[in-house]
Amino acid sequence: MRHGGDLISYGGCYGGSTRDFSSNINPLGYPERLGKAILGGMENLKTYPDIKYRRLKSAVSSYLGCKQEEVVVGNGAVEILHCFSMLFSRVIVCTPCFSEYIEQPLILGKEVVKLSLNQNFGISMEALGETIQEGDLLILGNPNNPTGRRLKKKLLLEIHSLIVERNAFLLLDEAFWEFCTAEDGYDSIELLRSSRNVCIIRAATKFFALPGIRLGYAFTHEDMALKYDSIALPWSVNAFAEIAGTVILSDDDYIARSRRYMEQQRNLLLGELRSIKKLIAYDTDCNFILLKLLKGNENELFDFLIQRGIMIRKASGFDGLDSSFVRIAVKSEEDNRYLVKCMGEYFRYGQSCLPCNL
Amino acid sequence: MRHGGDLISYGGCYGGSTRDFSSNINPLGYPERLGKAILGGMENLKTYPDIKYRRLKSAVSSYLGCKQEEVVVGNGAVEILHCFSMLFSRVIVCTPCFSEYIEQPLILGKEVVKLSLNQNFGISMEALGETIQEGDLLILGNPNNPTGRRLKKKLLLEIHSLIVERNAFLLLDEAFWEFCTAEDGYDSIELLRSSRNVCIIRAATKFFALPGIRLGYAFTHEDMALKYDSIALPWSVNAFAEIAGTVILSDDDYIARSRRYMEQQRNLLLGELRSIKKLIAYDTDCNFILLKLLKGNENELFDFLIQRGIMIRKASGFDGLDSSFVRIAVKSEEDNRYLVKCMGEYFRYGQSCLPCNL
Repeated sequence: MRHGGDLISYGGCYGGSTRDFSSNINPLGYPERLGKAILGGMENLKTYPDIKYRRLKSAVSSYLGCKQEEVVVGNGAVEILHCFSMLFSRVIVCTPCFSEYIEQPLILGKEVVKLSLNQNFGISMEALGETIQEGDLLILGNPNNPTGRRLKKKLLLEIHSLIVERNAFLLLDEAFWEFCTAEDGYDSIELLRSSRNVCIIRAATKFFALPGIRLGYAFTHEDMALKYDSIALPWSVNAFAEIAGTVILSDDDYIARSRRYMEQQRNLLLGELRSIKKLIAYDTDCNFILLKLLKGNENELFDFLIQRGIMIRKASGFDGLDSSFVRIAVKSEEDNRYLVKCMGEYFRYGQSCLPCNL
Repeated sequence: MRHGGDLISYGGCYGGSTRDFSSNINPLGYPERLGKAILGGMENLKTYPDIKYRRLKSAVSSYLGCKQEEVVVGNGAVEILHCFSMLFSRVIVCTPCFSEYIEQPLILGKEVVKLSLNQNFGISMEALGETIQEGDLLILGNPNNPTGRRLKKKLLLEIHSLIVERNAFLLLDEAFWEFCTAEDGYDSIELLRSSRNVCIIRAATKFFALPGIRLGYAFTHEDMALKYDSIALPWSVNAFAEIAGTVILSDDDYIARSRRYMEQQRNLLLGELRSIKKLIAYDTDCNFILLKLLKGNENELFDFLIQRGIMIRKASGFDGLDSSFVRIAVKSEEDNRYLVKCMGEYFRYGQSCLPCNL
């Protein structure tokens, strides 16, 4: 299982009733104003999307606080990963991380060097220092998936200095950025605005609850943006994603509401999970939580929960994690409570306990 | 100008009034039933598209008359071109052809060998025979863009035999297939169904008038389909394109109506254009026509027409064509008549003739 969200393979269906804790989507759903915009945009299907994405890039640049020329767009964040992988011959990643940081360069025949995060899922500056060479691409999740941890501002600046010193390039995947807590709050685009060695990916998928629409965007130096546009697929962002980008990013009320809701639910859920024995719930900066099971394994827990209409993310597929790890999203209060109840049953009574509704 | 359809760069706007003869889209617009399906599909945005595209592939396989396991899908035909370019180290094309047959492999660092079509835009079997080696990918448009010509059945079979004999691979881009005239009518999927050395691309973009939705699909051997799925971007087909695929391909009435309309308009337009002196209008099998100007050049004609609200495709950007060529789409009867009227003025009075509405 390379990715979460595959409800169809597990008895769910479109709009089915399985509660999907395996993909990390804002439980509030997408901004309401999008519906009307899509309806109004049916006409746009008849023409190609703007091959230069002028309106979209203008909306993204306002949102990110950068120049339009510093924006690149893609068919989800993953296409931006793919294109940057094309531009470099060696890629460095720190595992565990999102599988596509490894898959995309490998598919393109590039060399991938995997450094391990330490026991607390922290990055070793020493290992980076020993590894990074001129022309390398370092890909880091910020916050990182599946660990949920964001780089401290000081560490990010140290890593960036190393990258500049070595004449390498840093690709920060910040697809979960908007979910981050204010503590140690910084905006990496603000921080690294003048750098020629950085690209910072953001996306509509997670925070704006639009995994189906396929909209990714990123900040980078305008010279790199030109290079990117020369290799990206033409029209890779569809007409509806183009419309969405011009509508959702200015919905300040939705953004504020979502951040408040997530912070509240994350704290509630973390508290409840930590009251369960035989389970470690790691600290997280965003909308998902990595769990270590001190009893059973991912398969047993997955099967137990899927029978109760809950899908979680097995985590042994992540390089560097074994079958004692699972990842769960923070969802609505009702869903979270139900998850905690079922998890409690698993750890109290074990997998032989039958679901009440069977 | 690598592609047509860039209305925004030329004073047009979303839904603006410029008549776009530069992109080859069905003038009847997309099937009506799509509107309702999109509305009903707003819920689908909240979840990832099916990572295996089961429902979509099932609909495509019914339409193409092949097995579901023989279908691959992509973010428009161009993503399928991109993925196949990844799988081969040397690519052979016959110019003039769609620019992405050359661009995609080059972007990926592959070698591209360009063979020239002969004066009548025909393929030389001799040149192919001298060139194709084991492991090569031959990409052919069928019908070919910008020439509009389809391979004769006999020639296609000869080319395929050569491909098999050399242990190479044939990628047929049939994005315009549905527009083809019945004369020498054959279905290449039916013809090459049992081959392990072929992929045949089709797409929703042109015939179903959906350039904005980004849906491409293709037939290939199921072993190749597995290989393709292992390298294609995850979720590269968005949720609306997924819905569209399950709705439009079974609209037999729309398909029949569009084919009739196109055949009629193409014949009318060809006849009218051929009555203009100093202009060669080449035979075409589909919904666009390549023109050779015997007076002036593409820039003069483009500027003349854009002042009259018409955008055509300059063709010197195609390898092997010079500035005496332009390409035009076949559009609605009214648009076609207006084009012919304006073209007539250009050739009669020259570029100094001012548009009536200035």
